[in-house]
Amino acid sequence: MSVTAQDASLVGGRPVVPSRGALRPLGLREVRITGGFWGQRQQVNGTATLDHGRVWMDKLGWTGNFAATGTATGADGGPTEVRGREFSDAEVYKLIEAMSWEVGREADPSRDAGRDREIVELTALIAAGQAADGYLHTAFGRPGQPPRYADLAAGHELYCAGHLLQAAVARTRSSGPDQLLTVARRQADQVCATFGPAGAEGIGGHPGIEPALVELARLTGEQRYLDQAARFLDLRGHRRLPADHLGWSYYRDDKPVRRATVLCGHPVRALYLACGAVDVAVETGDDELLQTVAGQFDRTLARRTHLTGGMGSQRPDGAFGDDFDLPPDRAHAQSCAAVAAVMLAWRLLLATGQPRYGDLIERVLYNVVATAIGDDGRSFFHTNTLHQRFPTRIVPGDQEQPGTGCGLRAARFEASRCLTNLARLLASLTAYLATADDGGLQLHQYADAEVRTRIGDGRRVAVRVTTDYPDRGAVVVRVTECDGNRWALSFRVPAWATGAVLVDGSVRRPVRPGTAVLERDFKVGDVIRLELPVRPRFTLPDPRIDAVRGCVAVERGPVVLCAESTDQGGELDRLLVDPSEPPEDVSGRQPGGEVVATVAGGFPVVCETDWPYRPEGGGTDRPTVATGPSVATGPSGAIGAIGAAAIRLVPYHRWARRGSSTMRVWLPRC
Amino acid sequence: MSVTAQDASLVGGRPVVPSRGALRPLGLREVRITGGFWGQRQQVNGTATLDHGRVWMDKLGWTGNFAATGTATGADGGPTEVRGREFSDAEVYKLIEAMSWEVGREADPSRDAGRDREIVELTALIAAGQAADGYLHTAFGRPGQPPRYADLAAGHELYCAGHLLQAAVARTRSSGPDQLLTVARRQADQVCATFGPAGAEGIGGHPGIEPALVELARLTGEQRYLDQAARFLDLRGHRRLPADHLGWSYYRDDKPVRRATVLCGHPVRALYLACGAVDVAVETGDDELLQTVAGQFDRTLARRTHLTGGMGSQRPDGAFGDDFDLPPDRAHAQSCAAVAAVMLAWRLLLATGQPRYGDLIERVLYNVVATAIGDDGRSFFHTNTLHQRFPTRIVPGDQEQPGTGCGLRAARFEASRCLTNLARLLASLTAYLATADDGGLQLHQYADAEVRTRIGDGRRVAVRVTTDYPDRGAVVVRVTECDGNRWALSFRVPAWATGAVLVDGSVRRPVRPGTAVLERDFKVGDVIRLELPVRPRFTLPDPRIDAVRGCVAVERGPVVLCAESTDQGGELDRLLVDPSEPPEDVSGRQPGGEVVATVAGGFPVVCETDWPYRPEGGGTDRPTVATGPSVATGPSGAIGAIGAAAIRLVPYHRWARRGSSTMRVWLPRC
Repeated sequence: MSVTAQDASLVGGRPVVPSRGALRPLGLREVRITGGFWGQRQQVNGTATLDHGRVWMDKLGWTGNFAATGTATGADGGPTEVRGREFSDAEVYKLIEAMSWEVGREADPSRDAGRDREIVELTALIAAGQAADGYLHTAFGRPGQPPRYADLAAGHELYCAGHLLQAAVARTRSSGPDQLLTVARRQADQVCATFGPAGAEGIGGHPGIEPALVELARLTGEQRYLDQAARFLDLRGHRRLPADHLGWSYYRDDKPVRRATVLCGHPVRALYLACGAVDVAVETGDDELLQTVAGQFDRTLARRTHLTGGMGSQRPDGAFGDDFDLPPDRAHAQSCAAVAAVMLAWRLLLATGQPRYGDLIERVLYNVVATAIGDDGRSFFHTNTLHQRFPTRIVPGDQEQPGTGCGLRAARFEASRCLTNLARLLASLTAYLATADDGGLQLHQYADAEVRTRIGDGRRVAVRVTTDYPDRGAVVVRVTECDGNRWALSFRVPAWATGAVLVDGSVRRPVRPGTAVLERDFKVGDVIRLELPVRPRFTLPDPRIDAVRGCVAVERGPVVLCAESTDQGGELDRLLVDPSEPPEDVSGRQPGGEVVATVAGGFPVVCETDWPYRPEGGGTDRPTVATGPSVATGPSGAIGAIGAAAIRLVPYHRWARRGSSTMRVWLPRC
Repeated sequence: MSVTAQDASLVGGRPVVPSRGALRPLGLREVRITGGFWGQRQQVNGTATLDHGRVWMDKLGWTGNFAATGTATGADGGPTEVRGREFSDAEVYKLIEAMSWEVGREADPSRDAGRDREIVELTALIAAGQAADGYLHTAFGRPGQPPRYADLAAGHELYCAGHLLQAAVARTRSSGPDQLLTVARRQADQVCATFGPAGAEGIGGHPGIEPALVELARLTGEQRYLDQAARFLDLRGHRRLPADHLGWSYYRDDKPVRRATVLCGHPVRALYLACGAVDVAVETGDDELLQTVAGQFDRTLARRTHLTGGMGSQRPDGAFGDDFDLPPDRAHAQSCAAVAAVMLAWRLLLATGQPRYGDLIERVLYNVVATAIGDDGRSFFHTNTLHQRFPTRIVPGDQEQPGTGCGLRAARFEASRCLTNLARLLASLTAYLATADDGGLQLHQYADAEVRTRIGDGRRVAVRVTTDYPDRGAVVVRVTECDGNRWALSFRVPAWATGAVLVDGSVRRPVRPGTAVLERDFKVGDVIRLELPVRPRFTLPDPRIDAVRGCVAVERGPVVLCAESTDQGGELDRLLVDPSEPPEDVSGRQPGGEVVATVAGGFPVVCETDWPYRPEGGGTDRPTVATGPSVATGPSGAIGAIGAAAIRLVPYHRWARRGSSTMRVWLPRC
């Protein structure tokens, strides 16, 4: 491995470039999203979100922190004022990473030129803040500031360094090496000198530098970066960080990563660390470590993940709960954890080729990532609850910065990194659509797109994908370039897609969830069509999830639906669904641009009482669907008859876009 | 009103002596618990818990703090070491209060003499720590300590002062005025001087001084104490305390008490404040305030109270949740909140005479107070969850002080006041059994007891109560003293007691839940028998309580039952109950000394899957009861057939007495 412009000129930027694995990732010059659900969101990200982030960072002084530390000190020789939090430097790095991917997409050369200048300018600013030995953090180590690495648990210095490295990787892979790579290598060298085998046995409270060091090793060919990542991994899990009220598990310092069986603690921390572990395992050929981490993630998906793919159940720290502890009203499901889950699932997909990781990426994209961003690209959910009990009451002046867990997207959150995290994922989303291997091309996510790459020993293949997914289930693939010989075109068939059909010319072939492979001689102009059964369906929870017992959810293709008070005359807390009637699509698209559905049910009257527990037989427990109006009967909070009605459901990712509302994903059943 | 020995010599100690109200409380010389469920617990409290508390307070240095501040300062002129927390002084006061009630019970004159000397000795110790102007707190105001009242939100100075006053009230009412009353009055005067109309507009972060000032006013006849309580009440609710991360509602400083509609924030704070508001309302004849507070409590009971009577749903702060936000696995249900709920319900019962407040007291006593104390009287639950998911893993050395929310009773909790709070309630429990009014005697709680008082213009009446309650439902009352004329004997018939019968000689009269009144000429030897239908019954939750949808609970008389893993072969998380079969008593008493019950159900096999949500139709959703063994069927976490079995349930208050276990009150139904 060595630093070359090969990636940049040939395949384009890629977030992860493992040296081995089942599948080869494609770069931003090999895949292009041309429209549709994600094309629209990439466009908004590039034209609104990136500028929004820059404006706020300048306004809040986070970009200015670098100039302040690099060029001047306070009049009394003490520190200049550093604004923001101990992780604000990383926000600037993540914004540069997002900008770098955006330039790498090459959607609009004239706009990209301006964005390129912005990256160069920000890089110069950052470089000015770097110490002579490569150390770079604006809040530590200068006169009057706390010393370097004095607070490893909360200081976020290694975390910030990791994001600097990631930004440099993105920049170099997208546009070639420049000053940012120099700055990043100097910082990486300083970390290795400080925490290497001859240095301190320290780890950071927030992982992130581990996968970054591996990626920098992949980019530069420097073994010592990989070694340092492996060392951080081995040092972790021995309760080395100081104990605080959050506990060691919150920081994933409770037990070594090789001994854990499930993810715990703060999801972003746990997932970033797992990414680093997969990267180290892949590069060192440590299959046991790879299997261990895959097992941790599998158990986390089986027992600790919300229906939306969101993670985290505890308040106020947002940590994973115990197995099956998944209360929808306390779902933290932090937007950053969604980004981190995509990162981990992508690494495992590349390493193993297993389609269920593609399923998880799809679930998270449609139900957390798409939920977290406002239509304007300038407002965000920091966390993504599955049940909003009360409409958010806006306090005047608080619109920009409402509290965590509030039911409205906000322009910014002081303590959140979601804006830049979502931006860097969306700008690089193109790279998560497809992969190649020696024998062919694999499609993992479905969007209007063009894919053009080389397979095997350099055979050119290209396809164009056309689809209305996820509104409709047809995915049409036209071969636009090939050499006329045999290769394999593979489709991920989602786990929910029972009854999917692959249409090849006049041949209709039922395909099962998993991977559908079509291997033959292709010629230009061939059309293959995957038909996924996108229609609303009821979903039941595992009986061990106490918090949603007696409820159903409705999903439609990869999209989780929800009931929002905006559509409902009655109180959402009284809603009852009758799952004996199948849910139905509402014909045609709705003004919001997407298909919605209805389920049968109603809003029975609930009697107000002085004690919320009643003897059995004291009222109708299970109301039947009636055609008449709602009737109150029985004592003690008992439910009266339920009026038959079609209850409108909308995609969960669209909730709270029509103003403050209450919302629930899990719907009580009759 | 004036300080006399009248209470002490005639009726004995009483926690609350309102100057008006529907019912007159009886004192510790008018009622005596002679045995049974509560007699046993009072005995353990007097012989074990009080000494246990004293030993720990000496060991932890809390009693020593008074000597330290009163007699010496550090060598450098700085503060002597003060140990414990900012509320540790109050622990000593509450222990003295408990000892005072215990002496007032006069159960054992020889033991009481020793206890009396202990009170005198502790009082002298405390008096030595009092400043010249009456101020008394060991952690503030001395050289090197923070200044007095510098941290009203968290400093607990007014809170501690309140408990000093309560201790003096208990001591004076039980045994007559002594030095403790002098100390308390000097402290009260200092508070009035500091925070009176000419003083600061301040309130404490933890209420408690409000009801204490009213009670001291009732005892001493000093109007200014009542005025000061009313002033604290009026000053509260204007966001005067500094904002912190817990929010103003946590401290009940979010809105004036006269404008609130429901209790919120920290339950102990909210309930103590409500007690003070009732006391002020009663003494000032402010019926509007009384109705307002009663309404707040009523709504709290209707929407924010766990089945056990426990309060608080949030972690980690233990605050009330929103309406119907009652997750059993996150129930805080702090033991102190139970004591505070009894205090408030008792005040409202005295003011209004409504039996539902007696119901609540009974519920809290049997299901939180009795739960919180170990059989040895030396171990305690700080909080009382309704669902323990995992057995507590004991960390060696942590037995004395495990974390909040742990599933084992502990010898002490550094941050908990439950030991002394439970002790003072149990020592004075006798005073909560019965009341009198002009026309007769009212029995509110059922226990083996003797009641001897005067009604109307001094007519003597006495009864003896004999019962196996709550194991059995028969309560036998024998008239042991009367003048042969007409008076009324009233019984509280609990809300659950549908089908109760009052037997008067040969006459059996069905009585409805509420108050059953028997008014006639009584003669000595008359026997009246109340038959309450104590048998296990299913209880259903309000459909708006999301957290227990699809579950049933089982109650037996006033006792909530639970399933404990100790009795179950299978995993508690798989338990399913079939409510079509009525629950049954297990014949005879059990080794634990109490009746237990069984319900039909079983532990079906749950299939392990890689995703905990399954499509409808993907498995058996509602298993039927089968006589064969458990069978696994279906994909995706679906439940297999349920084996028919009798599932043993035990009183919730007995859980975790046989070692570490898992437990649930709310049982999933087939």
